[in-house]
Amino acid sequence: MASSSTVCRLHMRGRGRLTTCLQRVDTFLGRSFGTNVVADQSETPRKDEAEEKDGRKSFYAVQAERQEQAERSVLFSCPSRTSERKILKYLSRHGEIKKHFSYESYGMYAVAEFENRESVDSILEGAAIPTASHESTVPFKSRLLSVRNLGPADSSNQQSSKHDQSQTTIPINELMKRLSREGSVTQQITSLTEAYQLTDENIRLRFLVCSLLRDIAAAYFPECTIKPFGSSVNGFGKLGCDLDMFLDLDSISGRNIKTPKSGLLLEYQMKRTNSERAVTQSILSVIGTCVDQFGPGCVGVQKILNARCPLVRFAHQPSGFQCDLTANNRVAMKSSELLYIYGQLDPRVRCLVFTVRCWARAHGITSSIPGAWISNFSLTVMVLFFLQRRNPPIIPTLDHLRDLAGPADKCVIEGNDCTFVSDFSKIQLQSNTETLEQLLCEFFEFYATFTFTKSSINIRKGKEQNKPEVAPLHIQNPFETSLNVSKNVNVTQLERFVALCQESSWLLQQTETLTPTGGPTPWGLTTLLLPSQIAGIKSRKKRGREAASERIKGLLESLKNKNQQKS
Amino acid sequence: MASSSTVCRLHMRGRGRLTTCLQRVDTFLGRSFGTNVVADQSETPRKDEAEEKDGRKSFYAVQAERQEQAERSVLFSCPSRTSERKILKYLSRHGEIKKHFSYESYGMYAVAEFENRESVDSILEGAAIPTASHESTVPFKSRLLSVRNLGPADSSNQQSSKHDQSQTTIPINELMKRLSREGSVTQQITSLTEAYQLTDENIRLRFLVCSLLRDIAAAYFPECTIKPFGSSVNGFGKLGCDLDMFLDLDSISGRNIKTPKSGLLLEYQMKRTNSERAVTQSILSVIGTCVDQFGPGCVGVQKILNARCPLVRFAHQPSGFQCDLTANNRVAMKSSELLYIYGQLDPRVRCLVFTVRCWARAHGITSSIPGAWISNFSLTVMVLFFLQRRNPPIIPTLDHLRDLAGPADKCVIEGNDCTFVSDFSKIQLQSNTETLEQLLCEFFEFYATFTFTKSSINIRKGKEQNKPEVAPLHIQNPFETSLNVSKNVNVTQLERFVALCQESSWLLQQTETLTPTGGPTPWGLTTLLLPSQIAGIKSRKKRGREAASERIKGLLESLKNKNQQKS
Repeated sequence: MASSSTVCRLHMRGRGRLTTCLQRVDTFLGRSFGTNVVADQSETPRKDEAEEKDGRKSFYAVQAERQEQAERSVLFSCPSRTSERKILKYLSRHGEIKKHFSYESYGMYAVAEFENRESVDSILEGAAIPTASHESTVPFKSRLLSVRNLGPADSSNQQSSKHDQSQTTIPINELMKRLSREGSVTQQITSLTEAYQLTDENIRLRFLVCSLLRDIAAAYFPECTIKPFGSSVNGFGKLGCDLDMFLDLDSISGRNIKTPKSGLLLEYQMKRTNSERAVTQSILSVIGTCVDQFGPGCVGVQKILNARCPLVRFAHQPSGFQCDLTANNRVAMKSSELLYIYGQLDPRVRCLVFTVRCWARAHGITSSIPGAWISNFSLTVMVLFFLQRRNPPIIPTLDHLRDLAGPADKCVIEGNDCTFVSDFSKIQLQSNTETLEQLLCEFFEFYATFTFTKSSINIRKGKEQNKPEVAPLHIQNPFETSLNVSKNVNVTQLERFVALCQESSWLLQQTETLTPTGGPTPWGLTTLLLPSQIAGIKSRKKRGREAASERIKGLLESLKNKNQQKS
Repeated sequence: MASSSTVCRLHMRGRGRLTTCLQRVDTFLGRSFGTNVVADQSETPRKDEAEEKDGRKSFYAVQAERQEQAERSVLFSCPSRTSERKILKYLSRHGEIKKHFSYESYGMYAVAEFENRESVDSILEGAAIPTASHESTVPFKSRLLSVRNLGPADSSNQQSSKHDQSQTTIPINELMKRLSREGSVTQQITSLTEAYQLTDENIRLRFLVCSLLRDIAAAYFPECTIKPFGSSVNGFGKLGCDLDMFLDLDSISGRNIKTPKSGLLLEYQMKRTNSERAVTQSILSVIGTCVDQFGPGCVGVQKILNARCPLVRFAHQPSGFQCDLTANNRVAMKSSELLYIYGQLDPRVRCLVFTVRCWARAHGITSSIPGAWISNFSLTVMVLFFLQRRNPPIIPTLDHLRDLAGPADKCVIEGNDCTFVSDFSKIQLQSNTETLEQLLCEFFEFYATFTFTKSSINIRKGKEQNKPEVAPLHIQNPFETSLNVSKNVNVTQLERFVALCQESSWLLQQTETLTPTGGPTPWGLTTLLLPSQIAGIKSRKKRGREAASERIKGLLESLKNKNQQKS
């Protein structure tokens, strides 16, 4: 069985340094390949029945575990100059704290996860409703609390440090300094991934915010859940990314009750509308109103109910997350699961995606503003496709994952087949041993020469297909296969992407680029993140490769000159 | 001790017929004076610890009991032509049904009160979410259900009848026919009260609607209650009257937690506003949105949040009630309790109030439209004041009730003293033995000659006071004593009231009026409900008593002529 652990063993045998690098980044699940790394020292590993035989948990097992952790957690603001130990001691009167961490947002905040949910109830029972002389409070109680210190400040304590986790990415300049100190491009890629990926704490915080919001929605729909999807859970989320959530009402019972042939039947009386969409709009409207009027720390609530996918957008200040709540967004969830599986199959997948996305953002290929830019999702699919096209392939095709699916994996959403295997142990990988450096270089080369004019990128088949329709960039939607996920991209943007791939591919073949400087001077990956000389390309006219290369040579010269001046 | 039971014994000794009449009407609590009448045969009387020594329960004990009954109840629409027995048998699979009744609203509806709350949970667990091909449903589950009959209709059954209770008052014409058949004015008054007063079933339905609404509000405020106030609970409500409710958030814990001198304190983070009013508006706004979007059977939702007392108004179709929901309306609750106590002290109080209110409505003295009309509440206070002014008084003054209050009765709301006794056994009554006929006649006489120009009606003192301000009609607000509850009444309306009192007083002194006809021909009280000859008075010029009397004589003549024609 050539499962991913086989790949790991290969790594460990052949390329010890890479393995070490990858171990560093692969903490997404608190698991590294081949070795058992417990990310959270204060947590005793628990055998989960959904845990797969090879040690990797299915997407749903991870989701369920995170959700359950969140329900046992409280979020609270901490007074400044009060020792963390004192606060923890105070809270632990209500029960054993299993995990805790603090962070800076609008003030200092902390999360405490208790061993038992009863401790949370006990805390809430004793909590006070704040009173202020010129203000009134809406007495909606939640698990968002404030700790107030009524005594003198603890002079010994200047803010806790050990547990004070950053919840945002480091600025690009700082990242580039850090990368320049690494010893190889592969190490640089690993270091970038480490710096950018969501931390265990940040993921906990995301699930906690969902859980707090669920408390609001569960008021009316006790059987509902609110699930994070997209970058928060697919393994490719960057610190600081938006929190996309959806309200899952599918678990509400009473929908599929078998109607007897005769006799009596009891039915709920319920408001009726003429479409599922109207139901979604109605529910999101009410939840939006509640979040706006009652939700502590929730500001800037916007109800965007006439969008194709109706949503409620708001900022959750205590966590610092920008939140988008939708309803019944099941395809998005399957999409998240698919990316998660690909990310977990081989650690190089996530590293390459993080690196390409960072590179794309540095050059304005992607943007946070909607427009003709290539989206992060499109870029991720392009990386996956590239990895499927390696020889031997690093990851299997979606069709292959569908063929491996068991009966429980069967999933059809609105007529689209979203079936694929969820059990990692069923997936056998081929033993590709390329390094991240090689893969990055090959990625740029691959798309620098890709026949975008004719071909469609298709991760379902793992092979380019003829374009079914005219569009500068055609990437088949993996589930709604008649759709192009990059329909928005125009020729200019595609040309910029291709030109930058050419430039970066060329740069990675230059000895100057590949020589570690050991200091703050850019080299390797860092060079690729510097402003490009060709970034200004706007015309649709294709420029010859030589012309671009000339400009890149000029760039390299100027780099070398700078380095010489500094040294 | 001259408690009300002393009065009762007096009634029973001296005026057997009156006592019988009063026993008929005094089923408000399922208790009659002196005798134990169980209104609901299917219900085993339970000893309530709040039940007073003399058999009458305090206002709060009644409220709590009704509320608890409502929580064990479900409301459901019944299919036509399905036997009630079949439905009851079907429902009783979930537990013992303690009480049930059906009624006609928008279709047939029924209420089932279970012995235990668990039965309700069991019913809900098995209920289906309705599905229809061209409709979608908002899956908000409540205790409002539909029974569907999937088999053939029960041919034997033409709608249940025994339990089919009317939830609206009979039309005035029908009432007058019924009254004309009675043997005395006192019996007429009793009969009118019986026809108009809320039935036990109607009161249950009101508490059930509150309880259903509470399920919505409790979503966010688990400790809240929704309490009916005003005519639904004060003993003076007429079938079909609006359902006034208020959301009581006072029981939310965490408000008065003692702040320690040092150490840490945990507080909820909550939305803040600059006033209690803004909090009320915010909460009612959210509940209004929920009722509108999720509440089955709730239609025509209006948020009237800028009113002096912000409210949400809606029609609850399954019960047929027009509902007004306010928040934290504590003075209104004390006012309801005060009326309840007066109504319970002597059965003649409620009879006289119902009669005077029916008479006033027949002559357009009161109206459902806001304006310069005398309100039902003002009219009730006028009756109470009149009864305080009898010799000996039938009911004590509010100041006396305040003096009897125990420490637990102490109540100050927004600086106003709302303290009065709640324990009936502490109230001693004087033995006034006037009949209802006498009292009605004296009432008209009293207000026909009352010095409205100088005097204020004051039930706190039980004596007219000098008017503190210029207003045609001045009735002191019993709790906010600087306010006039009839500030809206203009001279024209007051003059009409006085003229009609004069007319009715005169009519009740005529032998023709007081002779029972035994048939459909109006006599006694019925005569007073006929259109008045003087109802058109609009001018402010006072007319001499003689002139009015002349017109009344003409009216009586015409009545006699009619009677002769008919017989």
